[in-house]
Amino acid sequence: MAQADPLFLGIDGGGTGCRAALWRGGPIGQGAAGPANLTSDFEAGLANIGKAIARAAQAAGLPEETVQTAIGHAGLAGVQSEAMAHRVAAALPGRCRVTEDRDIAIAGALGPEEDGAVLAIGTGSFVGLRRAGTIRAVGGWGLQLSDQASGAWLGRAALAATLEAIDGMRDRTALCDALLDRVGGTPQDIVGFAASANPATYGTLAPMVLGAAEAGDALACALFEQGAQWLDRALGALGHAAHEPICLTGGLGPRYRAALDRPGRRFLAPRGTPLDGALILARRTDGQA
Amino acid sequence: MAQADPLFLGIDGGGTGCRAALWRGGPIGQGAAGPANLTSDFEAGLANIGKAIARAAQAAGLPEETVQTAIGHAGLAGVQSEAMAHRVAAALPGRCRVTEDRDIAIAGALGPEEDGAVLAIGTGSFVGLRRAGTIRAVGGWGLQLSDQASGAWLGRAALAATLEAIDGMRDRTALCDALLDRVGGTPQDIVGFAASANPATYGTLAPMVLGAAEAGDALACALFEQGAQWLDRALGALGHAAHEPICLTGGLGPRYRAALDRPGRRFLAPRGTPLDGALILARRTDGQA
Repeated sequence: MAQADPLFLGIDGGGTGCRAALWRGGPIGQGAAGPANLTSDFEAGLANIGKAIARAAQAAGLPEETVQTAIGHAGLAGVQSEAMAHRVAAALPGRCRVTEDRDIAIAGALGPEEDGAVLAIGTGSFVGLRRAGTIRAVGGWGLQLSDQASGAWLGRAALAATLEAIDGMRDRTALCDALLDRVGGTPQDIVGFAASANPATYGTLAPMVLGAAEAGDALACALFEQGAQWLDRALGALGHAAHEPICLTGGLGPRYRAALDRPGRRFLAPRGTPLDGALILARRTDGQA
Repeated sequence: MAQADPLFLGIDGGGTGCRAALWRGGPIGQGAAGPANLTSDFEAGLANIGKAIARAAQAAGLPEETVQTAIGHAGLAGVQSEAMAHRVAAALPGRCRVTEDRDIAIAGALGPEEDGAVLAIGTGSFVGLRRAGTIRAVGGWGLQLSDQASGAWLGRAALAATLEAIDGMRDRTALCDALLDRVGGTPQDIVGFAASANPATYGTLAPMVLGAAEAGDALACALFEQGAQWLDRALGALGHAAHEPICLTGGLGPRYRAALDRPGRRFLAPRGTPLDGALILARRTDGQA
């Protein structure tokens, strides 16, 4: 590693936090900071990204102005237009390419070369397929209209089902009682929880749904099954072929493996994180990946 | 009608407007004003209810202070606890009983005596059953977790399906193209619409879904069918018996009639409005209904 080696910057920004990593011949420093969903709050998001970069520079023992020479890739939640991507790129140090966060998740999960499907299932969700270097993806449009199978989707669906159970429209399972207890004890408390909930708060209920499913709770199992059906439909729409490996990432991804297992399907552990993916794409910008 | 006849006050308050009616031996005056969803904005809602009452008094040729002698019933959206009901009652003129808005919708639709089921389907939805004077109801917990089959639910479901069609996960119908065109032309526009949408704005899309269903659009027909299945499940949960009449109210209620028709089922036109229902319950307060 020589000082003449180019400096690369990877950035992973999402609704719960952002991370930056620097690379010169190898990894030299990382930093993290608060949320960076640029649709929700553009200025605050940029400020947090700046903090994460400064912390990465500090960890690497580099003066912050050196980062101005970096070649970078930022994958950011909430970047949904070319115009916004350019606006963000202009505000970042160095020469950064900006994309929405699917690209870095796929590059991180599959590494620089391998083809395959990525099912990224955390607070939100999307399904992507890389074939001969070309990426197609479905879902991931946000909880209001999409994000099926995600933690937020599971939490919200479990609350809705609990209201139906209270109304006598479905069986009341242990998960219903636990959720009711968690939010305050009455159906009005459930409605109140939903009135101020965002994807992250719905997502805080996902571990309860997960735990209930592991204990065989009928409602929890049915919700995971419904999520798995959507994931299978997504794979089908992308034209996923039986021989192409499937990589389940995100906090909830591995949970769907059993429901998605079919004869001949090959599952692949994620090679790295979305931040690793951002560095891979930054280095590829310079033809080094 | 003598001046000695008691004065009754009915109030119907919801998210898009509120109405008040006065009765002395018969209807003597009505007034309307802006939204009165007390969960969304308590003070503004109360102020609008006050305006509607003042207008009703003016229409009846009564000095406003006379309303202080009224016996009333207010059915208000967003009243979900006894504590809130008492707080509102204390702020209203006369001696008013306050309930959430389901009660007045059922009393208005079925009149003071008749038993039967009420499927109230407008921007929101609920299903109620009155049997021997006792009311049970399901649904109506708000769009986030409930309100199946409603106008807001149809609008949101149609947008979600349009994103799936764009992703290649389902057939793209004429309704998808019309919705995409309506919100701006790109999937990002759909996401943007949803980001700032409330039930009323989702509900503005319901006429498009309705029109598409009438033209045989496969997606629109499937959404109405899904709504009808939920309504049927609600009737089942309430123990609705084949001989008990069904009253479809609200802007979209009648649209579900064909899908709910079964041999032996009897459908009943609504006898009156929720405001009529509020007056019925006000008069019953005094033992006159």
